[in-house]
Amino acid sequence: MANIYLGLVHYPVYNKADETITSGLTNMDVHDISRSCLTYGVKKYFLIHPNQRQREIFERLLSFWKTDIAAFYNQHRVDALTVIDFAISIEETTQLINNQEGNDPIIITTTARHRQDQIGFEFTKRLIETTERPILLLFGTGNGLHDSIHEMADHVLIPIQATAKYNFLSVRSAVAIILDRLLSEEYREE
Amino acid sequence: MANIYLGLVHYPVYNKADETITSGLTNMDVHDISRSCLTYGVKKYFLIHPNQRQREIFERLLSFWKTDIAAFYNQHRVDALTVIDFAISIEETTQLINNQEGNDPIIITTTARHRQDQIGFEFTKRLIETTERPILLLFGTGNGLHDSIHEMADHVLIPIQATAKYNFLSVRSAVAIILDRLLSEEYREE
Repeated sequence: MANIYLGLVHYPVYNKADETITSGLTNMDVHDISRSCLTYGVKKYFLIHPNQRQREIFERLLSFWKTDIAAFYNQHRVDALTVIDFAISIEETTQLINNQEGNDPIIITTTARHRQDQIGFEFTKRLIETTERPILLLFGTGNGLHDSIHEMADHVLIPIQATAKYNFLSVRSAVAIILDRLLSEEYREE
Repeated sequence: MANIYLGLVHYPVYNKADETITSGLTNMDVHDISRSCLTYGVKKYFLIHPNQRQREIFERLLSFWKTDIAAFYNQHRVDALTVIDFAISIEETTQLINNQEGNDPIIITTTARHRQDQIGFEFTKRLIETTERPILLLFGTGNGLHDSIHEMADHVLIPIQATAKYNFLSVRSAVAIILDRLLSEEYREE
């Protein structure tokens, strides 16, 4: 089984005017991405947000999903949320993974933009299969990860190449597609 | 370019207790799926809902996105919503596609469940590339399309096979993954 962690970064990210901002945690990102993570065997899905107060609000929200009422309402959703964890920064995320794995993760960032020296999906698949280190895949909210995050990362993944020129997938859709490309086992079998 | 239409069915679908229901239109399904559709070159994304009143509410909501304020706020989102259309039933959807294409679509349904005689992704890709007819891909809200829809369809696509046993992707994530598997051009190129 691949040894994958995923982080959804809320700071520093760009807004549509290319300014550096902190984005808010959203319910939609929590639910859709946790379901994709558990479906593809991601070990932990970190909500990375610098504001301790936002984290507390979300932990209270998530605590509802640990009650019997929630389990009766939707057991699958309860299961999906067990994959979630919080961190205030990428550094803390790395530390939490190291605590678990005894090794720092290889950090791979994602972007809808073309950059120099991006790695492809096949290369990344091979890396995941052959490395002994855990992998941390980082996604940006808002209009994407700040350049400084790509610069500190070990690798930057190429953008999703679709058929149309328009490429403005939601981060939730991008997570689903990238996990499928990197982790799905031979879907071509019929 | 592939000749693909997509329909999100709100009736008849199952709820978690396997009862037949009509689900409500949601803002999240509108935005995320329209962005995926435009990214992958889907010609029209039909919101299929039997209730004319729900449709009117959503058309009013969408009309906001045709204003200058919305364009200033987020042009990409405005572009994405041009792909949306409404229909009260699968029959009406088929008729609207026939009006456009001069031919009924081949209807392919999707499901997270295993059934007899499902077609695989490679087969479906070849079908899309070789047929002269348009394709209508149907997705279910709630807990998935009613069996009667699979029975009237030309084909039923196999479920997304991920790594984990748990498979409870949101319909938004399932749409993204299936469009990527069927329509993305050689993402393996590096």
